[in-house]
Amino acid sequence: MPSRIAPPTLRGGPVQPSTGALQALGPDEVSLTGGFWREKQELNSEVILGHCERWMERIGWIGNFDRAALGTLGTDHSGIEFVDSEVYKLLEALAWELGRKPDDALESRYRTLVARVEAAQEPDGYLHTSFGRAGQPRRYSNLEWGHELYCFGHLIQAAVARLRSGCDDELVQVARRLADHVYTEFGPDGRDAVCGHPEIEVALVEFSRATGDARYLELAGIFVERRGRGLLKADRFGAEYFLDDLPVRDATVLRGHAVRALYLASGALDVAVETGDVALAGAVATQWENTVARRTYITGGVGSHHLDEAFGEDYELPPDRAYAETCAGIASVMLSWRLLLQTGDAQYADLIERTLLNNILASPREDGRAFYYTNTLHQRVDGTVPEEDEISVRAQSSLRAPWFEVSCCPTNIARTLASVNLYFATKTGTGVQLHQYGDYDVSTRIETGSISLGVRTGYPFDGAVSVLIREAPDAAASVSFRIPAWAVGRAVVHVNGIPVPGSGATITVSRVFRAGDEMTLHLPMTPRLTRPHPSIDAVRGTVAVERGPLVMCLESTDLPDGRALAGILLDDGADLTETARGVRAHLVSTGIPKPDWPYSDGAWAGTGNVGYDVELIPYCAWANRGPSTMRVWLPVALPGRGTARA
Amino acid sequence: MPSRIAPPTLRGGPVQPSTGALQALGPDEVSLTGGFWREKQELNSEVILGHCERWMERIGWIGNFDRAALGTLGTDHSGIEFVDSEVYKLLEALAWELGRKPDDALESRYRTLVARVEAAQEPDGYLHTSFGRAGQPRRYSNLEWGHELYCFGHLIQAAVARLRSGCDDELVQVARRLADHVYTEFGPDGRDAVCGHPEIEVALVEFSRATGDARYLELAGIFVERRGRGLLKADRFGAEYFLDDLPVRDATVLRGHAVRALYLASGALDVAVETGDVALAGAVATQWENTVARRTYITGGVGSHHLDEAFGEDYELPPDRAYAETCAGIASVMLSWRLLLQTGDAQYADLIERTLLNNILASPREDGRAFYYTNTLHQRVDGTVPEEDEISVRAQSSLRAPWFEVSCCPTNIARTLASVNLYFATKTGTGVQLHQYGDYDVSTRIETGSISLGVRTGYPFDGAVSVLIREAPDAAASVSFRIPAWAVGRAVVHVNGIPVPGSGATITVSRVFRAGDEMTLHLPMTPRLTRPHPSIDAVRGTVAVERGPLVMCLESTDLPDGRALAGILLDDGADLTETARGVRAHLVSTGIPKPDWPYSDGAWAGTGNVGYDVELIPYCAWANRGPSTMRVWLPVALPGRGTARA
Repeated sequence: MPSRIAPPTLRGGPVQPSTGALQALGPDEVSLTGGFWREKQELNSEVILGHCERWMERIGWIGNFDRAALGTLGTDHSGIEFVDSEVYKLLEALAWELGRKPDDALESRYRTLVARVEAAQEPDGYLHTSFGRAGQPRRYSNLEWGHELYCFGHLIQAAVARLRSGCDDELVQVARRLADHVYTEFGPDGRDAVCGHPEIEVALVEFSRATGDARYLELAGIFVERRGRGLLKADRFGAEYFLDDLPVRDATVLRGHAVRALYLASGALDVAVETGDVALAGAVATQWENTVARRTYITGGVGSHHLDEAFGEDYELPPDRAYAETCAGIASVMLSWRLLLQTGDAQYADLIERTLLNNILASPREDGRAFYYTNTLHQRVDGTVPEEDEISVRAQSSLRAPWFEVSCCPTNIARTLASVNLYFATKTGTGVQLHQYGDYDVSTRIETGSISLGVRTGYPFDGAVSVLIREAPDAAASVSFRIPAWAVGRAVVHVNGIPVPGSGATITVSRVFRAGDEMTLHLPMTPRLTRPHPSIDAVRGTVAVERGPLVMCLESTDLPDGRALAGILLDDGADLTETARGVRAHLVSTGIPKPDWPYSDGAWAGTGNVGYDVELIPYCAWANRGPSTMRVWLPVALPGRGTARA
Repeated sequence: MPSRIAPPTLRGGPVQPSTGALQALGPDEVSLTGGFWREKQELNSEVILGHCERWMERIGWIGNFDRAALGTLGTDHSGIEFVDSEVYKLLEALAWELGRKPDDALESRYRTLVARVEAAQEPDGYLHTSFGRAGQPRRYSNLEWGHELYCFGHLIQAAVARLRSGCDDELVQVARRLADHVYTEFGPDGRDAVCGHPEIEVALVEFSRATGDARYLELAGIFVERRGRGLLKADRFGAEYFLDDLPVRDATVLRGHAVRALYLASGALDVAVETGDVALAGAVATQWENTVARRTYITGGVGSHHLDEAFGEDYELPPDRAYAETCAGIASVMLSWRLLLQTGDAQYADLIERTLLNNILASPREDGRAFYYTNTLHQRVDGTVPEEDEISVRAQSSLRAPWFEVSCCPTNIARTLASVNLYFATKTGTGVQLHQYGDYDVSTRIETGSISLGVRTGYPFDGAVSVLIREAPDAAASVSFRIPAWAVGRAVVHVNGIPVPGSGATITVSRVFRAGDEMTLHLPMTPRLTRPHPSIDAVRGTVAVERGPLVMCLESTDLPDGRALAGILLDDGADLTETARGVRAHLVSTGIPKPDWPYSDGAWAGTGNVGYDVELIPYCAWANRGPSTMRVWLPVALPGRGTARA
């Protein structure tokens, strides 16, 4: 049975607010055509999607739905409570993938999976494989940790992806029945409760936008307002972990569990935008600002604590114990994207770029068959290689693992890469905005007609970007370029060879475009030293190297034979030079003393300093050549000699 | 019924090896008479012991035994699985306390508690309130996390304390029946298994020493040898957490869960000493050396990870995320004490002093009614005051909590303070060794007769120590003084006003002493700056201040009005001067920039530097004056100015 085709107005990207500075484009409007990002999207298409599906078949996470439908599921549920959500994130990824590039074989796989999920839905709309059956906990008996509404949210998000791709199919009907059930159970006449893990909020607003059903928006608003009032039982990690310590509108910085915090903030902003709640939107913007200023790694990663996967305090950003969970990076992009659509402010696109390139892309291995759950900025020991057919715990290895007990990251990568093209450009009534750079085409309609253009570049390794207009309205229109913060004041745009004035974070070309018009953007890509704020104690006395949008790292694999990261200093007076994809830097290896007691009332000094050049590689590419150690932050000075005893 | 009096040969301190360089003294041989340490021991006697007992009555942990005896205990067990051990640690504390200072009322409380425990023992000797009853897990069904043998170990340790105090009572009989049961279940003809949490090993060797039953030593040896062979199911934290990745004799550094690692190493050394296993003893000594050199905080605390309460990698010693669990400090003292008795090497007494003063004593609040579980070296935010009548999770607050869900630390403090006098001095056949300084008396017998002396000092605040001989054999004898590492080469000993030669880590006075002989030791207590090894990334560019054996800290409470720890630098060129118990230092407050993005390609600079003097206080005394922030490691330099955006 063919999918019903959704009305064209439903089409669009992830997040389609009814109002805002910018409008998202749909999967039929912006497509990657080659280069760096196309490679990543094809890796997802050809490897990661199948990897996720095979793993979830093999270990019974998809089979849970079949057994639920057959009535044979009970205490023998496969996996932890919320593995349903991984199946839904895969469905979302498949939906975006099909929207981007229709494919009969993939469509058939998608439909089969939807049918298996649908078969498990109960008559009243409830759909979860871990609750409510004989031998299982009762429905909604463990809102703190059971993740029921979280799973529902991911199913609904998958349905939204399907609608935005132009298909109104069975999954959408499943989501409607489920969302209606949630409205009955938790709506104005339902129980006064929230889910321990936010996600339903953002899903309900998006579903409301995509279906036009106002009840879903109403319910999302209710969940946002209920939170922060102690409805959840705060146990070992306290109420802050659940974001249940403070109403969203009263918080000034993101805190607690990083993924929970960012999903909630995204949902809260969606509610605020749709309801015109300026105070709530302002609170979320303030939280973003303070979090970026004080609680974000240079990679864009967030979350300083392994124990509770939480944000740390202000400036608590240890590189070696960075949690910087892949899912938190994805959640950060979700929030920044919403703020970008709302305001048009380039700073949000800046953080999206930083986080995509330096946190999220660090997760998948080059071959797409293993993933980092956490993304450390300093690896001290080689560690061990996870088995390719074993399920890992989430943060045990220095190398990527094929699958995890809590395997939220691989499927989150899958849905993000399947839709990453949608973050590259937006439109307004009068023009197109280019936020990210790569090889991609845009074809859309603005108020005065159709506009079509092609962007080509060797970015993120090269700073030259060209834009060719293929079609344009016969009226003034604009094309604007985001200028990354590190390039502001030094970036140059030309139209047909003529410089365009502008030195801010956005340079806009406004004119009556003709097919064949060419624009170029030049971004200065010279490698640069970056120094951390003095309040970040954990990296005092170190520098990082950045090249354009990429954070570099020193991986032990690239050291001359016999050298190790211990005792290495960066010579910050020497020039940094570009290589094909990296940066050549001058290092000094010092023979570090090995005393009985590592605290001295004298000074410490290395012995036998040796200088040499080494190539730093993009951080996102590390750990693809076997076990290694790695640093992003490189020490620049070593104090003198000493001896001591305990 | 009076306790049977144990033979005098059984009397002694914690750890009574059959061979070794030094012999421990018993509670009747060394007693604190006043000053700093006597205050701590009296706080324990008058407040902490009662605090622990009241809490465990109130929340049913002692009541578990009553209900077990009545047969009414089942799924409604109070507290987590291993709360029996807290009752046993309290019993051990009471035993030492009674050995130190007999008291009818306390004896009666002790006996009542023993009777309640004894009543719960099963006919086959098994004794645990969490396993084996209807509704409870089966005995030994969860060796990884159930802590059954761990609890048994603490009961046995309590019995050892009773025997060493000269009493062979009901508790000892309970322990015999229990140890015999364990021998049957886990001995040469029993199951091939170990407990997830070591403790039984050290207890069995000590019980073997105290009872003369060689089977207990044999069983301890079996447990030590079985470990590291994958008998435990390694789940989320891996085999290293349990020390089950590598046999004890093959490890070169302590790793995994810090308390587990140190209890195991202590038990392994006990086995090695009793069996003459030089290789095993050597392995433990190497582990101690490497751990002290690379995995120990300046406070003596160990454990860098909150997630798994584990040692970090070499030089991974973040001050702000220091776990440095109180129990790990106590376990470290247990191991160092054993190595000191074995070798007589002053370095072990040095670490005992450092850890007692700067890690363990930081745990109890001045009033003895609240405790730190973890002992951070850097507190960033004021945090909240725990309720005085609520059970805390273990690491949630910046202020000490009265009790914890896992409340291992308060009772461990109790048993340590009740016996801390026993760590001050030892004897050999020919003399007495003074390892720690305070006001205390020693009366013991050496080969040539009785020797009695009194030590008096204002230490740890003052470096003048005087020793008065009260009685001495009519033959040559020796009194030796440990010279702390920071004083080696600068300490001076006099006998009756005449200087004694010696400049090493021990200065020994050998002569025919007469009653009335006076010795003095002068330790140089000038405050000093201490610089961390360059491999400790987390404190690069900072210094600590030490004064004698005390690590100092800067607590926000001591800052002038309106100043905060953010942006503070220590002027390391200015003089440090002594105050009554602290150190006056010169600080510079800088106005730190607050950028939108905390990474810059320019330099950072503070504005409006203001210099002023502030008193640093002993770290162990911090957080006794309400919520505050605190640093041990003080930055000494701040780089220049910059601005940036994400």
